[in-house]
Amino acid sequence: MASKPSIPKGTRDFSPTEVAKRQYIIQIIKSNFEKFGFQPIETPSFENSDTLMGKYGEEGDRLIFKILNSGDYLGKANSAHLENKDSTKLTSSISEKALRYDLTVPFARYVVQHQNEIEFPFKRYQIQPVWRADRPQKGRFREFFQCDADVVGSKSLWQEVELVQLYDTVFTTLGLEGVTIKINNRKILSGIAEVIGASDKLIDFTVALDKLDKIGEDGVKKEMIEKGIDENAILKVQPLFNFTGSISEKIEKLSSLLSASDEGMKGVEELRFICDNVAKLGLTSATLDLDVTLARGLNYYTGAIFEVAPPKSVAMGSIGGGGRYDDLTGIFGLKNMSGVGISFGLDRIYLVIEELNLFPETVTATSKALFINYGDAEAFYAMQAIQKLRASGIKVELYPDNAKVAKQFQHADKRAIPFAVIIGDQEIDSKSYSLKNLVTGEQILVDFEKLKDALL
Amino acid sequence: MASKPSIPKGTRDFSPTEVAKRQYIIQIIKSNFEKFGFQPIETPSFENSDTLMGKYGEEGDRLIFKILNSGDYLGKANSAHLENKDSTKLTSSISEKALRYDLTVPFARYVVQHQNEIEFPFKRYQIQPVWRADRPQKGRFREFFQCDADVVGSKSLWQEVELVQLYDTVFTTLGLEGVTIKINNRKILSGIAEVIGASDKLIDFTVALDKLDKIGEDGVKKEMIEKGIDENAILKVQPLFNFTGSISEKIEKLSSLLSASDEGMKGVEELRFICDNVAKLGLTSATLDLDVTLARGLNYYTGAIFEVAPPKSVAMGSIGGGGRYDDLTGIFGLKNMSGVGISFGLDRIYLVIEELNLFPETVTATSKALFINYGDAEAFYAMQAIQKLRASGIKVELYPDNAKVAKQFQHADKRAIPFAVIIGDQEIDSKSYSLKNLVTGEQILVDFEKLKDALL
Repeated sequence: MASKPSIPKGTRDFSPTEVAKRQYIIQIIKSNFEKFGFQPIETPSFENSDTLMGKYGEEGDRLIFKILNSGDYLGKANSAHLENKDSTKLTSSISEKALRYDLTVPFARYVVQHQNEIEFPFKRYQIQPVWRADRPQKGRFREFFQCDADVVGSKSLWQEVELVQLYDTVFTTLGLEGVTIKINNRKILSGIAEVIGASDKLIDFTVALDKLDKIGEDGVKKEMIEKGIDENAILKVQPLFNFTGSISEKIEKLSSLLSASDEGMKGVEELRFICDNVAKLGLTSATLDLDVTLARGLNYYTGAIFEVAPPKSVAMGSIGGGGRYDDLTGIFGLKNMSGVGISFGLDRIYLVIEELNLFPETVTATSKALFINYGDAEAFYAMQAIQKLRASGIKVELYPDNAKVAKQFQHADKRAIPFAVIIGDQEIDSKSYSLKNLVTGEQILVDFEKLKDALL
Repeated sequence: MASKPSIPKGTRDFSPTEVAKRQYIIQIIKSNFEKFGFQPIETPSFENSDTLMGKYGEEGDRLIFKILNSGDYLGKANSAHLENKDSTKLTSSISEKALRYDLTVPFARYVVQHQNEIEFPFKRYQIQPVWRADRPQKGRFREFFQCDADVVGSKSLWQEVELVQLYDTVFTTLGLEGVTIKINNRKILSGIAEVIGASDKLIDFTVALDKLDKIGEDGVKKEMIEKGIDENAILKVQPLFNFTGSISEKIEKLSSLLSASDEGMKGVEELRFICDNVAKLGLTSATLDLDVTLARGLNYYTGAIFEVAPPKSVAMGSIGGGGRYDDLTGIFGLKNMSGVGISFGLDRIYLVIEELNLFPETVTATSKALFINYGDAEAFYAMQAIQKLRASGIKVELYPDNAKVAKQFQHADKRAIPFAVIIGDQEIDSKSYSLKNLVTGEQILVDFEKLKDALL
């Protein structure tokens, strides 16, 4: 191979520092998932194609990575499609497996397949990569991790309360204070659609309303009318154009606005329960806000809808989202299994924490000290100490070769190893170690106990 | 979908308990890798096909999972191969990417691609899944994890010494005492081949010799002669038929046996350095043993060869292996980059630990206590305590619904949650909690501090 090797577009190699930082975030998410009673599961990277196909719409089907059958796959290929060179139709006859596209459909498949072993309500979390044949662009990759926590088998709104707390706890632990957890409810949106008399215009309505800050009330109304929403209908939801105040004030506004819609009022009650209890229990660093323009996942969410915005100082889209869906497992034949879940956007959280310089300095994959190698006798003396230090949990290493000392120090420097340990005849004779702080340049002669204390 | 969904053969779902146990093993491997100065990297799940193809032999090429190109892949397919229905030849024109088959080739690709950013010697570890289209059978899967630690850029034999210590440390930490770390050296095997005058018969020779315990000296010799090894040649290595004693005794035997072979003697010197230093530094629970029949990875190993056998009470193949290879990155155009590494067999280690009942009881993904839900007022009181307990790092949860109490206790029981917390009017009035030990049945009334202490 003549040219330098490369990796497929949209994929990434992670260096030691990047892995350490990602693991730091994942570890915090994971430990909080567990504190909240969620249990981990893992599913295979690839599923049978019929488990995935048709679950994400036509666009989704196109973006699923298909795995070619092994062996003589053309032997079993559909001849007509092969002859017509119809790629789309041929695929199912030469590919039976596909890489998972998200963690939600595999989770639904897991719940249905293992329903007799699972004790419901089932609180599961899953942190695994997913793959999408999307056009790669800044911040969008073909392989990326999803971090999901879901509960299935209970309609209790206490779950929503806890998921808001979970977001607050994770971001607080990450030092990422000031995030906004936006909440809405699918039933509120249905109520609005009912009141404006145009269910099919709901997306147009919320998209336009979301521009209030940018283009003002007149601009928003103009856009709504252009989209074919009736002027009188718009008047009926006039309060939404001045939708400010505390959450309870907003809920009261919605309550009077949607009084004619049973479903809307159900949404108001749900919001009230969730927001009241979150307020009474209190959040640590996040703010809960009611955002009636929040319409993500409109097709499958049936109750609460969540989205998390980073602190306002950072220009970045949502770093988490989720909601309540009443029929997750219906696609696999198990009815009446309500679920609610949230997801953390690992890559974006990484970028936000990096930008705000919030990674602790201790997040590093490097060693605490490098023992300089002056030859086999010295190396053996070093190894005796290294063995004991490692047994105490301290990351230390020996430079493997008896190379030039300057080169060895340069190695420590380039790897940001903070200490060097120097061992010569003098140290061996006096059963001691010269410990050099590579940041300050200070060098001291110490016995083993002091060495250990300094490196702990 | 009418029938119950399933997963592709050779793949696995992991339940919460299985994930917790796997994570327990991985965490111990990972933390010891880091103590020994290894740094994590991660590479993409799929590589460009030309990175992988041709690196594992013809059989390997066949077992690599190929990913179908997106979009109109038949448009760019080779017409002749398509017409001839030649699956093997067509593949490269409809598939540009493939799932990684091991971690070694992607690591070599990583080192070459990032050679200007890497500070050598580079000690990396990598714990990621790999995929092989092998025929699934007991203990062999199509998706499984590899856990590899390698050093590249140094020929120092101190690395081999440390890798033996690393095996010892990991298995000791896992409580898996009594493993045997077998060591051999490619140069010893070359020396033997030289002495018996039959390099091409080396595998036949070691395979036969390995049966000494089973079929006795005469049986082994008979097999060797049947394989075409000269009787006089066999006589020259007669000491190998009584190859017992301490490692140093074995090394002395080899030293006189291979004195005519320069390469063999080089192997003896390497073995002596490694084994002497390992002995002088001492192992905790593992035993190092010299096994001249050990010939794994004969094609690519150039120095030390390692293999780890589980304790003799367990009938199971090797649970780890590795060795020194002098030209890992040559396939991608970077010469003279010697490397040495070891691997841990996660699935087999799991089975051994399970069989010997060595998983600590604390390895579980379940909560410490379930708060019984008697209605919203009681649930709110519970949530106040739950919030504070979680802030102290304690895993607790509220049963989300106000279901029948018996059902809630059954839920705790089925999930092996050890405590239940019961809250009624009496508890709320007296600012206390009834804590029930679900193992002993004992129930006590406690204040919050005592509750916390009991669940810590």
